Amino acid sequence: MSFKAPVKDMLFNIEHLARIDQIALIPGFEDAGLETAQAVLEECARFNEGVTAPLNVEGDLAPSSLKDGVVTTTPGFKEAFQQYAEGGWQGLQHPSEYGGQGLPKTIGAACGEILNSANLSFALCPLLTDGAIEALLTAGSDELKSVYLEKLVAGQWTGTMNLTEPQAGSDLALVRTRAETKPDGTYRIFGTKIFITYGEHDMAENIVHLTLARVAGAPEGVKGISLFVVPKFLVKADGTPGARNDVHCVSLEHKMGIKASPTAVLQFGDGIGEAAEPGAVGYLVGEENRGLEYMFIMMNAARYAVGVQGIAVAERAYQKAAAFAKERVQSRPVDGSVKGSATIIHHADVRRMLMTMRALTEASRAMATVAAAAYDAAHQHPDAEVRKENQTFYEFLVPLVKGYSTEMSLEATNLGVQVHGGMGFIEETGAAQYYRDAKILTIYEGTTAIQANDLVGRKTARDGGQTALGLAAQIEATEKELAAGSDDARAVGKRLAAARKAFVDVVNFIAAQAKADPNAAYAGSVPYLMLAGNLVAGWQMGRALQVAEQQLAKGHEEAFMRAKITTARFYADHILTRASSLRDAIVEGAGSVSALAIDDF
Amino acid sequence: MSFKAPVKDMLFNIEHLARIDQIALIPGFEDAGLETAQAVLEECARFNEGVTAPLNVEGDLAPSSLKDGVVTTTPGFKEAFQQYAEGGWQGLQHPSEYGGQGLPKTIGAACGEILNSANLSFALCPLLTDGAIEALLTAGSDELKSVYLEKLVAGQWTGTMNLTEPQAGSDLALVRTRAETKPDGTYRIFGTKIFITYGEHDMAENIVHLTLARVAGAPEGVKGISLFVVPKFLVKADGTPGARNDVHCVSLEHKMGIKASPTAVLQFGDGIGEAAEPGAVGYLVGEENRGLEYMFIMMNAARYAVGVQGIAVAERAYQKAAAFAKERVQSRPVDGSVKGSATIIHHADVRRMLMTMRALTEASRAMATVAAAAYDAAHQHPDAEVRKENQTFYEFLVPLVKGYSTEMSLEATNLGVQVHGGMGFIEETGAAQYYRDAKILTIYEGTTAIQANDLVGRKTARDGGQTALGLAAQIEATEKELAAGSDDARAVGKRLAAARKAFVDVVNFIAAQAKADPNAAYAGSVPYLMLAGNLVAGWQMGRALQVAEQQLAKGHEEAFMRAKITTARFYADHILTRASSLRDAIVEGAGSVSALAIDDF
Repeated sequence: MSFKAPVKDMLFNIEHLARIDQIALIPGFEDAGLETAQAVLEECARFNEGVTAPLNVEGDLAPSSLKDGVVTTTPGFKEAFQQYAEGGWQGLQHPSEYGGQGLPKTIGAACGEILNSANLSFALCPLLTDGAIEALLTAGSDELKSVYLEKLVAGQWTGTMNLTEPQAGSDLALVRTRAETKPDGTYRIFGTKIFITYGEHDMAENIVHLTLARVAGAPEGVKGISLFVVPKFLVKADGTPGARNDVHCVSLEHKMGIKASPTAVLQFGDGIGEAAEPGAVGYLVGEENRGLEYMFIMMNAARYAVGVQGIAVAERAYQKAAAFAKERVQSRPVDGSVKGSATIIHHADVRRMLMTMRALTEASRAMATVAAAAYDAAHQHPDAEVRKENQTFYEFLVPLVKGYSTEMSLEATNLGVQVHGGMGFIEETGAAQYYRDAKILTIYEGTTAIQANDLVGRKTARDGGQTALGLAAQIEATEKELAAGSDDARAVGKRLAAARKAFVDVVNFIAAQAKADPNAAYAGSVPYLMLAGNLVAGWQMGRALQVAEQQLAKGHEEAFMRAKITTARFYADHILTRASSLRDAIVEGAGSVSALAIDDF
Repeated sequence: MSFKAPVKDMLFNIEHLARIDQIALIPGFEDAGLETAQAVLEECARFNEGVTAPLNVEGDLAPSSLKDGVVTTTPGFKEAFQQYAEGGWQGLQHPSEYGGQGLPKTIGAACGEILNSANLSFALCPLLTDGAIEALLTAGSDELKSVYLEKLVAGQWTGTMNLTEPQAGSDLALVRTRAETKPDGTYRIFGTKIFITYGEHDMAENIVHLTLARVAGAPEGVKGISLFVVPKFLVKADGTPGARNDVHCVSLEHKMGIKASPTAVLQFGDGIGEAAEPGAVGYLVGEENRGLEYMFIMMNAARYAVGVQGIAVAERAYQKAAAFAKERVQSRPVDGSVKGSATIIHHADVRRMLMTMRALTEASRAMATVAAAAYDAAHQHPDAEVRKENQTFYEFLVPLVKGYSTEMSLEATNLGVQVHGGMGFIEETGAAQYYRDAKILTIYEGTTAIQANDLVGRKTARDGGQTALGLAAQIEATEKELAAGSDDARAVGKRLAAARKAFVDVVNFIAAQAKADPNAAYAGSVPYLMLAGNLVAGWQMGRALQVAEQQLAKGHEEAFMRAKITTARFYADHILTRASSLRDAIVEGAGSVSALAIDDF
């Protein structure tokens, strides 16, 4: 079956949960109202349904390949990327100063989801380019900006993030790649980077490697890391690519999923470039030894974007499973509603699986959309207080968007295979690809545990749980409104209240233990993340139910609004109910996590 | 790292939970005491660690392939299977009358786990052969038995189960393969079967296809299905393979996992055999139209065995992840216990993941071992009342062993990849193979939903929940003992009590709704299965904790017993706690499962 972007659901979130009308009041976003959102999303859907989605299976069958240092991407990818660039999609959220369209993240994130649903492997190239643009916008010198930004924003060149080394994965303190200072202010970079997504490819005329390295004499650990621009081709005075720089792809990884996306091992400074002296030419971004700080700018954008990837692949898996369930005939329904064998969507457990996929996806999407709106306000709102509030809210939500949406994508893609039965395990069916592809999402740009550490440490313990408890108070306000509503509203309100209370217990536990007994606090970090994500996503479903009931009363979009109410109710009954178990495990089970001696494993 | 069979844990279960001393009192099992179990398991470990485990990766890289109707298995498989046969492993549980060793399932199932941990794809061939042997033993004529059983038990020939057709997966009422009666009492079979595991291969000199088909004029639906033996080579009067029968492999599936195991499309009666007339020669097993009943004999044995596969792959994934976590150095522990970067097993969430894998695996193994002991008593105990009790208990446990152990294997293999971080997603690491392989386990031999339907319908609703409530009463007795014990015992007892109460609520709900509102009862079928499996496995961990404390008091195996206690406590704190969420979703959430109109999906 072909992919159909969930534009209606996205616009519902953008209009009612993210309140695009409020965003359009912010200077710079005046043209970014609901009409713009609709026009952009519809065009985005048309492009990706037609161009990138049909290449998804092909990418799995004919992954990128390396020969003599040259990476050839899946047939069709290069042309699709050219169309992507020409359509202006790379510049959607970037400043008009550099050729972008300056649209809010609230719209841009939805476009990102559509692109990722269509083709997760393809979408990684623009995703990383976005990160490189963010880093240069924030910390790049005027010269770096003028040389690189327009080309990146236009999709003419692409960007990468070069962090990981064999010994340095989550732990960047262990980075060894070194940068030698040259008299002309440039640097020469030497070292090996691994897991570099789109580190080498044939889809653009140049690649801009944002690279972490240590300048000689820098402090040890993360405080001695600097960020460099290392272009694949040095840029000539006229702005076009010139000599080949001394950075080369020496191998590609053989991965379980996202196979079309080349994952490169890059060698810096092997002396096989066209440069006069050894070392890859690099240009410092910002100041020396502040590289990690800048890299986090890219990484935070990327973390949010990877969360969106989770939603995207879950949506795609859901659509495929729902279509199969409506076609496949097998067995009689238990209620006798159909004589003889019926399509499997008539079976209660198939319905339960599809509803679980749907509810997880819609709730995570709603959470991500609200987070994007906070980002927009945090960055562009004229009132500093509003910016700060929104920044705090956004920062709390980033680990949830990344961690919860990607973990739920594993559940959704697993159910997607399961709905297909034996056919799901056969690669030709396509459901298995989503299962394989999704597994990277809980790992890259910081594993779920890394997100959870961020949530426990920086986002909860640091302010004694105040931000988290403030959020709980907002949720409680929604509960009260729900308690005065329909049967469905009351049922959702009840579950929301139970989950929120569980969350408050956990926040208090984490805030109290973080210093007193850090092992106990961190033992519950991932369950806490899952509880928080579940709650915040469920809260948005509660809000969505309220809106849908109001819209129904006005006679708007009846089928859609009824489906939203049903999905919200399902989420509350079947997913918010998970909160109490997580609470018990975190608050009462910390001791047994670390009780077994290391030698006994 | 190399695989090491968990013989000590298996013997602990066999001795203390399954009470092998009691089994050895049953006539026919006199020689099957603890010493025998130990000797057999140690030899089994030696064989599989040395022979089949090293072929596991190779099987993934060089799957079985088909050329001109001939299937060539992974290099090394044929030789390994020969050694397997010569070692007498195929006959372990089968009657000595046919050359087997007649050991109890309590020992045989543990050997099955070792084989499956070592090489899931390889193990499928013996697994299906076991099923064919069971079917022939139960329903085959003396002639069929004399022609086929010795060869199958010796591992000289192998067996298959031919159920599925393109339109008939879970729904065998739709089987269309037909059988024509011949004057000599034989049949000619015509049709297409799909998903036939080891349906064609080069590891044995003959293949015995146990095949479902309809005799002309048979009733519609499942009551018109008969079971046939269709050998690949017709058997000559001297018992050796003769003319090629008209059953051929026309293609192999391209699967996400268990790639070494050939999954065949078999064509019966295409006229390309060496027979004088068209049709594959088949021999009726038992009586006409009772095929499904006989097939269930194979299937029940196979369902239990697939549950064991789940435990096996989880164990393998756990071992690999634990070894990696003890080697990989990355980041400082939050409690400052190590200066600088430490091995990742020092991080709380890595510990939580490993403990989850370990606890799920040990608990599922304990449950399966106890189920095997019930099978042995049900089949061989001299007292009819004891046989009946054990049969009821065993039948209740089969869907739990199959459903819970395989679903948990998805969680365990996912965590196995996650512990490895980015390395886990790279195929060379090996963790991804377990993740891909495991996904078939919740599907074949009846999906989790099919197991859950069995649990709801035949095992719970049919007797008004009496068996389930009887089990709850047994668990309550264990709780009371735990409540009088150590801190750990009391903590486990408390969680066991909460889970048991949740289970009782659900059983009462299911028993009440099964007829009144079947959609409501079946909407909770899989969550009910997960709750029941969780509880029964947790109960066995509670019993294991009691034993371990007693053994510790006697000074036996201190490290092992302490680890068992810690693991039981972790299971209670982190896994039994899931019960309440499942209860709420089942008892209070049935309505929202089926509320969305089919057109709205």
